[in-house]
Amino acid sequence: MTTLKNDLLLRTLRGEKTERPPVWMMRQAGRYLPDYMKLRDKYSFFERCQTPELAAEITIQPIEQVGVDAAIIFSDILVVPQAMGMEVQMVESKGPLLPEPIKVARDLDRLVLPDVEEKLGYVFDALRLTKQRLDGRVPLIGFAGSPWTLLCYMVQGKGSKTFDEAKVFCYSQPEVAHRLLQMITDTTIAYLKGQVKAGADVIQVFDSWGGLLSPEDFENLSLRYMRQIIAALKDEVLTILFAKGAFQSLDGMAATGAHGLGIDWCIKPSLARQLAGPGVALQGNYDPAKLLSPIPVIQKEVRAMLDAFSGHPHIANLGHGILPNVPVDHARAFVNTVKEYRYNG
Amino acid sequence: MTTLKNDLLLRTLRGEKTERPPVWMMRQAGRYLPDYMKLRDKYSFFERCQTPELAAEITIQPIEQVGVDAAIIFSDILVVPQAMGMEVQMVESKGPLLPEPIKVARDLDRLVLPDVEEKLGYVFDALRLTKQRLDGRVPLIGFAGSPWTLLCYMVQGKGSKTFDEAKVFCYSQPEVAHRLLQMITDTTIAYLKGQVKAGADVIQVFDSWGGLLSPEDFENLSLRYMRQIIAALKDEVLTILFAKGAFQSLDGMAATGAHGLGIDWCIKPSLARQLAGPGVALQGNYDPAKLLSPIPVIQKEVRAMLDAFSGHPHIANLGHGILPNVPVDHARAFVNTVKEYRYNG
Repeated sequence: MTTLKNDLLLRTLRGEKTERPPVWMMRQAGRYLPDYMKLRDKYSFFERCQTPELAAEITIQPIEQVGVDAAIIFSDILVVPQAMGMEVQMVESKGPLLPEPIKVARDLDRLVLPDVEEKLGYVFDALRLTKQRLDGRVPLIGFAGSPWTLLCYMVQGKGSKTFDEAKVFCYSQPEVAHRLLQMITDTTIAYLKGQVKAGADVIQVFDSWGGLLSPEDFENLSLRYMRQIIAALKDEVLTILFAKGAFQSLDGMAATGAHGLGIDWCIKPSLARQLAGPGVALQGNYDPAKLLSPIPVIQKEVRAMLDAFSGHPHIANLGHGILPNVPVDHARAFVNTVKEYRYNG
Repeated sequence: MTTLKNDLLLRTLRGEKTERPPVWMMRQAGRYLPDYMKLRDKYSFFERCQTPELAAEITIQPIEQVGVDAAIIFSDILVVPQAMGMEVQMVESKGPLLPEPIKVARDLDRLVLPDVEEKLGYVFDALRLTKQRLDGRVPLIGFAGSPWTLLCYMVQGKGSKTFDEAKVFCYSQPEVAHRLLQMITDTTIAYLKGQVKAGADVIQVFDSWGGLLSPEDFENLSLRYMRQIIAALKDEVLTILFAKGAFQSLDGMAATGAHGLGIDWCIKPSLARQLAGPGVALQGNYDPAKLLSPIPVIQKEVRAMLDAFSGHPHIANLGHGILPNVPVDHARAFVNTVKEYRYNG
């Protein structure tokens, strides 16, 4: 096994003191990078995901071009519903489309609990190849969507601001909803264990739509399933939970035992720390739209953010994915400001 | 002046003890009502807004058909940018389109501070006619969008999940942004004063997109302008602020002196009360998607919500607008559950 030359992310997640916070950016392997766009023009979304050579190349681009402290495997949360038997189309610049969504109990009969090696082996291959190419430069993050967020797409059939149909499905057919959530959870645990075996140093669970739920529904429909996932993984890998907008439930998320919790820019670092408790690493929370500000403004604001999080484990990141129209030198300014920062004492 | 037969909403906003909370629903005059749909098929959106006869009829429909305790004038927040000189198109079931959005300083030259009597007199006429037709049955609510929310549309040019272009406009041209926000604020104050003169008993300010901002930006781009609006109005009319998703700033909103604060379902009533303080009325916060649950579930959950808010002034409402696919008898079940509820002691 190669020794990591840069293990800042791992030490931070373990709660160790570091000289500065590690930095990476959600969607860092993506559309703001001209080299990514060249591959996007040549290969379809699923070709890029399913060809380990391409996925590894895309994953490593931001390490070399922007200098982040961690790589995150290029993939998509919807590979799980796909492996469970649903058709998933990626309509470029329009988002995902699942033409035959789940609506009633008998639709669950169309789903399988897949053999993850057989159906998602291409992700594991991509992780292995990336790990080899990284050659210990930085840690590699694997990921999956939360069961609630995947249910949103599987029921709604496409993106939505409010995912009303998914919510109504859960409110009017709770027993079916919980059966589906458990199927997704079981698949996700097997999938993430496979990612760990293939070399992922850290696992992040994305609950993109947890913030649409009331605190009670978040516990009932989202957190209880993420709790199972963290419980199954936390002793063999470092874990991060990111439930966008659900910061009112940071205490419950911290209680899962996850090593890190992602937060967005709508919560002050001090309040997030108060809700989450002192031990867990907090990850975030720069407003991605602010990467379009002039570089001196970015530098000033990033330093203020780092100050606000200092004193407890912190991973510098955006509060959501980087926007496609961010100039690369602005992304680099974000990363470099963190890399030049030093904790006192 | 006609005496109000049902002044529950007004007494609650004044902080007086009542036998039960008043109830109304955001977007109660809207697409879930078959009689509204008949008018929608016959008249364009702006014909419905600009014809006092039609606006009054639509405003009164939910009073007679669902039994809510307040009427809210049928109109749209985008009548203000329109009065300021921008073209606003309403594309049915697609949302608003402003084909010539504000992008740079010189675009402000296209805007005017309108004579509200001349440009928005049709809203005042609609309020007067509605008031007359209501004949004191329930109070009448007038409204406007917050300056930040209107800026979102005026800069982005259409709806958006994230309003990145509007945010970038503010972050990269702050001086222009603040000039625009002040122009909208001045227009809105004149507009709302006109609504009060025309008979509005209560004014609600909708900050639909305040929740997209960090707490600092919310203060800087949204709250400071809403503060001006509330300061200009609160001594002559009862006021409600609703900044969806911005509940971390409830303390700042309470400090404006608004009589009521709207909240969505993502915050627990107890935490909202803790943040807002004991005096102000809280309005909300049933998840609109839950109106698609079976009626007995609605009844049970609404009672639980009323219990959770009891002890302090509360206006029963949804946490956001009613969905078009809600059966009318479900809306009625929501309203009736509140009307049958009684506070103890």
